[in-house]
Amino acid sequence: MKRSIGAKTLLYPHPVLIICTYDAEGNPNAMNAAWGGICSSNPPSVAVSVQKSRKTYENLTAKQAFTVCIPSAKYVAEADYFGIESGKNTDKIAAAGLTAAKAAQVDAPYIEEFPVVLECRVSQSVEIGVHTQFIGEIVDVRVDESVLGEDGNPAMEKVMPFLYDSACRTYHGVGPEIAKAFSAGRALKK
Amino acid sequence: MKRSIGAKTLLYPHPVLIICTYDAEGNPNAMNAAWGGICSSNPPSVAVSVQKSRKTYENLTAKQAFTVCIPSAKYVAEADYFGIESGKNTDKIAAAGLTAAKAAQVDAPYIEEFPVVLECRVSQSVEIGVHTQFIGEIVDVRVDESVLGEDGNPAMEKVMPFLYDSACRTYHGVGPEIAKAFSAGRALKK
Repeated sequence: MKRSIGAKTLLYPHPVLIICTYDAEGNPNAMNAAWGGICSSNPPSVAVSVQKSRKTYENLTAKQAFTVCIPSAKYVAEADYFGIESGKNTDKIAAAGLTAAKAAQVDAPYIEEFPVVLECRVSQSVEIGVHTQFIGEIVDVRVDESVLGEDGNPAMEKVMPFLYDSACRTYHGVGPEIAKAFSAGRALKK
Repeated sequence: MKRSIGAKTLLYPHPVLIICTYDAEGNPNAMNAAWGGICSSNPPSVAVSVQKSRKTYENLTAKQAFTVCIPSAKYVAEADYFGIESGKNTDKIAAAGLTAAKAAQVDAPYIEEFPVVLECRVSQSVEIGVHTQFIGEIVDVRVDESVLGEDGNPAMEKVMPFLYDSACRTYHGVGPEIAKAFSAGRALKK
């Protein structure tokens, strides 16, 4: 039996995307965005939604470039901090004790301690109510060598990402593998 | 030390979104979409990317309505099946042994066995390379009473959602809570 709980931004799982940008003077900033995800396979693209009041909005508009950094679970406090402090008067990355470095291919910083970094150029922006959705073409992905598995791909148990539950306002780790994709459903195919 | 692995649609975590639609004749269909996420708080909106070759693209264009259904981990095979079978000649929901029901507020079906359902009306669509991104205004969320926690919100350990790892093409469950959001980072605030 289903019950209506109203029009809410409920979804499982929400990602924890740390969006890193420079301002016009080259100062790095980081924000925590749960509203986003991959939006095209080719060109590989990621969408992140940002409100106009954010420092990150100003930076994205000025630079048209950003990185999406994926934090490991051991950095959950730092990631949460990026969501509750404003970058307007604070160097949040330094205040969190983390290291901003310049991305190789785009005019944006990334956080050295985070294992996965998507380097993105803004390809378009879309107005959706109170949020502006910035669509970034992913021009490169850089990962810590320490999180690569034997097959050369990043391994979930080494990346150790986490996710956000908007219903209970909690962060959760990722559990064990439960099935192979493009395989588990084969038995149902006629 | 970071290593370039090229321009890829890597992100953690990807959701497993089952997009349900009717065709012009009222036949239900379901597809498995990992490219999507919440894209605005107000009006509450979700974005899902669909290729033009899909039956779901045709249905979305005709009906301008869809649901996003979140499957529990016990339905991982059915969810995977929705990603590897085409709806052009098959009633995938019936073939998976699941039940399509009509959404209360939009002209789209949902899957009764899945615990969380977002009822959506298409508000705009955006061309992003090989994908069309459909933005849906969430007009209601309906959840199984059995997954509600004591506070009236859906509880993660009852919803039991899962996620997709595109690097290793595996599905993973959700792990335990690791921190409170809007709280874990407070100690870093000056």
